[in-house]
Amino acid sequence: MSIPAPLTGVVPPVCTPLTPDGEVDVPSLVALVDHLVTAGVHALFVLGSTSEAAYLTDARRRLVVETVAGHVAGQLPVLAGAIDMTTPRVLDHVASVTAAGADAVVTTAPYYARTHPAEIARHYRLLAARSPVPVLAYDLPVGVHSKLSAELVLELAADGTLSGLKDSSGDLGAFRSVVLGARARPDLAGFSVLTGSELIADSALAMGADGVVPGLGNVDPAGYVRLDRLCREGDWAGARAEQERLCALFGMVGAGDPARMGAGSSALGAFKAALHLRGVIACPLTAEPQVPLSEDEVERVGKYLAAAGLL
Amino acid sequence: MSIPAPLTGVVPPVCTPLTPDGEVDVPSLVALVDHLVTAGVHALFVLGSTSEAAYLTDARRRLVVETVAGHVAGQLPVLAGAIDMTTPRVLDHVASVTAAGADAVVTTAPYYARTHPAEIARHYRLLAARSPVPVLAYDLPVGVHSKLSAELVLELAADGTLSGLKDSSGDLGAFRSVVLGARARPDLAGFSVLTGSELIADSALAMGADGVVPGLGNVDPAGYVRLDRLCREGDWAGARAEQERLCALFGMVGAGDPARMGAGSSALGAFKAALHLRGVIACPLTAEPQVPLSEDEVERVGKYLAAAGLL
Amino acid sequence: MSIPAPLTGVVPPVCTPLTPDGEVDVPSLVALVDHLVTAGVHALFVLGSTSEAAYLTDARRRLVVETVAGHVAGQLPVLAGAIDMTTPRVLDHVASVTAAGADAVVTTAPYYARTHPAEIARHYRLLAARSPVPVLAYDLPVGVHSKLSAELVLELAADGTLSGLKDSSGDLGAFRSVVLGARARPDLAGFSVLTGSELIADSALAMGADGVVPGLGNVDPAGYVRLDRLCREGDWAGARAEQERLCALFGMVGAGDPARMGAGSSALGAFKAALHLRGVIACPLTAEPQVPLSEDEVERVGKYLAAAGLL
Amino acid sequence: MSIPAPLTGVVPPVCTPLTPDGEVDVPSLVALVDHLVTAGVHALFVLGSTSEAAYLTDARRRLVVETVAGHVAGQLPVLAGAIDMTTPRVLDHVASVTAAGADAVVTTAPYYARTHPAEIARHYRLLAARSPVPVLAYDLPVGVHSKLSAELVLELAADGTLSGLKDSSGDLGAFRSVVLGARARPDLAGFSVLTGSELIADSALAMGADGVVPGLGNVDPAGYVRLDRLCREGDWAGARAEQERLCALFGMVGAGDPARMGAGSSALGAFKAALHLRGVIACPLTAEPQVPLSEDEVERVGKYLAAAGLL
Repeated sequence: MSIPAPLTGVVPPVCTPLTPDGEVDVPSLVALVDHLVTAGVHALFVLGSTSEAAYLTDARRRLVVETVAGHVAGQLPVLAGAIDMTTPRVLDHVASVTAAGADAVVTTAPYYARTHPAEIARHYRLLAARSPVPVLAYDLPVGVHSKLSAELVLELAADGTLSGLKDSSGDLGAFRSVVLGARARPDLAGFSVLTGSELIADSALAMGADGVVPGLGNVDPAGYVRLDRLCREGDWAGARAEQERLCALFGMVGAGDPARMGAGSSALGAFKAALHLRGVIACPLTAEPQVPLSEDEVERVGKYLAAAGLL
Repeated sequence: MSIPAPLTGVVPPVCTPLTPDGEVDVPSLVALVDHLVTAGVHALFVLGSTSEAAYLTDARRRLVVETVAGHVAGQLPVLAGAIDMTTPRVLDHVASVTAAGADAVVTTAPYYARTHPAEIARHYRLLAARSPVPVLAYDLPVGVHSKLSAELVLELAADGTLSGLKDSSGDLGAFRSVVLGARARPDLAGFSVLTGSELIADSALAMGADGVVPGLGNVDPAGYVRLDRLCREGDWAGARAEQERLCALFGMVGAGDPARMGAGSSALGAFKAALHLRGVIACPLTAEPQVPLSEDEVERVGKYLAAAGLL
Repeated sequence: MSIPAPLTGVVPPVCTPLTPDGEVDVPSLVALVDHLVTAGVHALFVLGSTSEAAYLTDARRRLVVETVAGHVAGQLPVLAGAIDMTTPRVLDHVASVTAAGADAVVTTAPYYARTHPAEIARHYRLLAARSPVPVLAYDLPVGVHSKLSAELVLELAADGTLSGLKDSSGDLGAFRSVVLGARARPDLAGFSVLTGSELIADSALAMGADGVVPGLGNVDPAGYVRLDRLCREGDWAGARAEQERLCALFGMVGAGDPARMGAGSSALGAFKAALHLRGVIACPLTAEPQVPLSEDEVERVGKYLAAAGLL
Repeated sequence: MSIPAPLTGVVPPVCTPLTPDGEVDVPSLVALVDHLVTAGVHALFVLGSTSEAAYLTDARRRLVVETVAGHVAGQLPVLAGAIDMTTPRVLDHVASVTAAGADAVVTTAPYYARTHPAEIARHYRLLAARSPVPVLAYDLPVGVHSKLSAELVLELAADGTLSGLKDSSGDLGAFRSVVLGARARPDLAGFSVLTGSELIADSALAMGADGVVPGLGNVDPAGYVRLDRLCREGDWAGARAEQERLCALFGMVGAGDPARMGAGSSALGAFKAALHLRGVIACPLTAEPQVPLSEDEVERVGKYLAAAGLL
C-alpha cells in the first residue's frame, strides 16, 4: 500500500521481541502488533532504534518485516528502518525491506564514515532515486553524531527526495522550523513531519506536527492514541493531562543502574520488561551486548506500570 | 594460517579498487595485493576504514576477502575487518570473512547504539567466545565516538579475549600505555600492538609497537617496509628521514576541497588517485556517497607523488 | 529587591550595546532597557550569552550591571550572569554583580576544566552557600559541553541550593522533567523554571514553565509579552500565531554568511543590527573577535523586521 | 627578559600550591620554583592547566606571576597563561601578567562562545597586535573543544602572529606537521614547538620538537631534564628508558576514584600530593570545586613515588 501524504497520528516504533536465545520471537511480535493495532495506532514503524535494529542481523531484520507486513496485510502502513552506514549498504536494506513488504523506508545520514553536508545530501538523493518506496529521513544525532539541519531537510523535501522526517533529535525548535517551512510551501502539503519524543508529543502536535513515533507507545499505545485525538480535537488541557501521565510512565527508562549499563540497555530493557509484565510478549530479553535488567530493576518497571494504571 | 603472535611489521589496510559502476574491481585488487606483497609487507588488512568497508555491501565485502585470501594463498596472514554496530551483526561478518579465508578479525566497540564500558567489554567477550579466529580490537574514536581505554584493552588481553590492538585513535600516549602494559606481563608476550598512524610510525616502533597499519602504505609500501627495517635495526636517523619523506607524501590527503567534500572523501580519493596514477589500479573511484576528486585535485596528488620520487 | 518565587513572565537577556571602540555604550544600554521595560517585560537578565558576557571585561561587566540596576532602580528584578570557569572565579563575579545591584545570579556548571557530576553539584553548593542572592542554574551545553540532568537540578532545588533554572539546552523533554518534578513537590513551589528558547516559548509555557528568556526579546519585546499573556489566558491559538510570527522574525539569526563567521557572530550581529535599525541603539557592533555583518547582511536583517511589521 | 627563539628544553607548567583556605601559598610556590630551577629546567610556565589557572581568581593569578617572576628575577624565562574565553578578556590577562613580569603569554582559542576558524585567526591576530610580549598558542581541545589545525598554526607563525605552540592535544601526528612545516621555512627558525605530553616527550623531541611542558615535571623535574639531555645527545635507548620510568610514575594520575571525582581532580590532586609527600609544598589541596584525594588515594600516590625512587 502507499503511505498517506502526510502520514498522521500515532506510529509506534515496534519493539522486537526475542526468544531466550536471541532469535526473533515471531508469535510475540504478532501479539505485540495486535496489541498496537487494537489500541488504534495509525501506522507501524519497524526496524528503528526502539526495535533494536542496530542489534538485529540481516536475517532477523527481514523476518521482522515479513512478519509484521504479512500480519497487518495492508490494514495500516508499515514503515521500515534501513539503518546502515552508507548509501550502498542502506540500498541493500531498502531492497530487503521493500521485498518483505515495507511501504516506506526511514534512513539516517551516513555514520561511522566521516561525513560532510554535501555527502549527506548526495546520500539521500541517491537513495531516493533508487528506492521503490518513499524515503523518510531519520534525524538521530545521538547515534549518527551529526544533525540534519532544517534547511537541508526542507531542500530535500522540495526537490522530492524526502517524503518525511522522523525527528529524534530532541531539538523541538529546529523541528518547528521544519514544520513551519513545510507548511509555507503548498507543494510540501504531503510532507510528513513526525517526532520521536515521548515527552513532548503534545507540544509537537500543537505546533503542527503530523504524527508521533514514541517508543513508549509500545507499552501504552492507547495513551498515545488518546493524546493524539485530544490534540486533534483542540482539547489542550486534556492532552496535557494525558501527556503528563505518559511522562510519569516514561520514568521507567531510568530503571537500570547507570553504573552497570548504558541508557539504551535501561530504556529498551524497561519497555520490554513492561510488555512482558503486561503479558504481551513472552520474554523481556534485549539483544547482545546490552545488559539485562535485574529482578529489582524489573520490579521498578512494574511500579511505573501500576502507578499509570496499566498493571 | 594462524597469525604470528605478536604480528609484526607492515600491515597495509588494503584499498578496495572499484569499477566505474561501484563493483569490486577484482583484477585491480589482485594487482594491488601483488604491488604490496612485492614491496615486502608482512601481512594484509582488508575491510578496514581505508578499504572503505563502511561503504561495501556484504557481497562486496565477501568478494574482497575471497579475492585477497585466495590470491595470497597463505603466503602471508590476512586480517579482515568485521565492521558493524553490535555483537550479533559483527558475528555475521566474522562468520563471513573467516569462511572466505581471513586469519584474524579486527572489530570496533559498538557504535550508533548507545554504549557503556560494561557493554563494550561484554561485546568483545562474546565475539571472542564465538570467533573461530583471533580477535583484534580496532580503536577508531573518529568513527565509533568512544575511545578504548588502555585499562580495558589490557584487561581484555589478559583474559584472552583480545589478541591485539589496531590503534587509530591518534593518541600515542594512551597507545604507549598499552605497549608498556603488555610488555610488563610475560603472558602477554604474544599480544600485537599496531598503530594506524601514517605520520608517527617511527615513534610507535621506537616505543615498542609491534607493527604499523598505514593507509598510505597502499601508495608507497616500499617506504614503510624500509622504515620498519630501519627501526628494527636501530637506525633512528635513517628511520626519521624515511618517515619525514612519507609525512610529506601524506600531504596528498588534503588534495580535496574541504568546502566540497569531507576529509574521508579527500583522503581515500587521494590514495586511489595515487594508485591509479602509479598504474596499479584501473579506476580511482571511491564509493558513494563520497565526492570524487576533480581533475585539478588529482593533479595535486600527482605532484605529491612526483615530489616523493614515485611518479 | 528580592526576586519573585517563582519568577514569571518575559525576562529578556539584555544585549550589551558597544561603542565603535568596544566600550559599553551606556546611553544606548539605558535606551534599550527603556525599550524593554516600556514593552512590559517582567524582569531583566544581564550578562548572559546574548549580552556577550563571555566577551566583556570585568570592568565592562560591572558597568553593565551598575547601569541597568541603577536605571531600573527596583522597578523590576535584575538577574545577572556570573559566567566563569570554576567556583572561585564565579564567586568573584557574584560579589561584583551583587555589589552593583543584581538581585539574583545565573551561573553555569564549570567548563574548560574537566568536570564530573560530583564536582558540578559541589560547585553549585559552594556558590549558594556564599552568594548573598539567589542562584539560578544556567544550562548551556553548547558553551559548557555538559548537560545539567533533570535529576541533578531537582536535587539541588530540593536542598535549597538552586532557586531556578535557565534552560538553554534546546532539550524540551528534559526541561519538562524539571517542570513536572518541581510541581510534584510543594516545597518547590517557588522554584523558577525558565526557557531560553525563542522558538518554542509557547510550548514551554503551555507545559508549565514559569517564564521565558528569549534573545529575540531584545528586538521584539512586545511580541513576547503578548505571547506570554496569551498563554496565561489559555488562548493557545492566539499564542501559536504570535509565536509563529516570532519564529519567522527569528530567521534573522541566519543573516551572516556561515563561510565567513560563526553562528554566534551571525545571531548576535543580527539582534544588534535590528536594534540599530529600529533606532534603539547607536551602533550595531559586536565584541571581538566576532566577525561583523556586511551591509548586505544587515539589509537581510531589515527585511525580517519589515516582514514582521517592525520597521 | 626576552624568551629564546626557539625556546628549548624542559618548561614545567608550575603547580600552584594553595593554603588550606584556598589562597596562594607563596612560600610553597617559591619552594617549588627552587625545586624546579635546581633540577635544571630551562624555563617556567605559570597559569597553565596544571597550574589550575582556570580555578584561580584574578588576584591569585597576579600573585602567582609576581611571586615566580620576582623570585627567578630573570635567571630563566617565565611564560604565563592568559586563559580566558575571548579576546577582550584575554587582553586584560595579558596586561596583568606582563605587568607582573611574564616574558611571554600562552593563550587558547576562544571557548564557551561559539567559534569559527575565521574568528580564531582574528582572535590571535588581535592579541598579537596588542601584546607587549610574544604570544604562544595553547592547543587544548579537551578544554577548548576545538583543535588548532597545523595549517592555521603555520599561517599564524608565518605572518608573525604566533611565536610558538604549546600542544596539549595528544595528537602527535598533527604536532609533527607543525614541526616539519616550521622547519621547512627558514623564517620560522625561531618558532617554538612544545609538547605538553608527559608520556611521549622522547618521541616529540626525536621528531624535532623544541621543548616539553610536562605536568609531571613538577614531581620529577630532574627526570625530564635527564630525558631532554639524553635526547639532545642522541642517546635514544637511554632516553627511552628514562621516559618509561616517567611513564610508570605518571600512573599516579589515576589515583583518584573515577566514581567520585573527575580526571582533573585526580591528576592535579596526585601531583600536589606527590609534591607534599616529597616535602616541597606545605599542603596538597586543589582548588574548588575539585574533589580532594582520600588518604588511601594519597597512599597510592606514595607507592608510585617509591617505585620511581623518589621517596
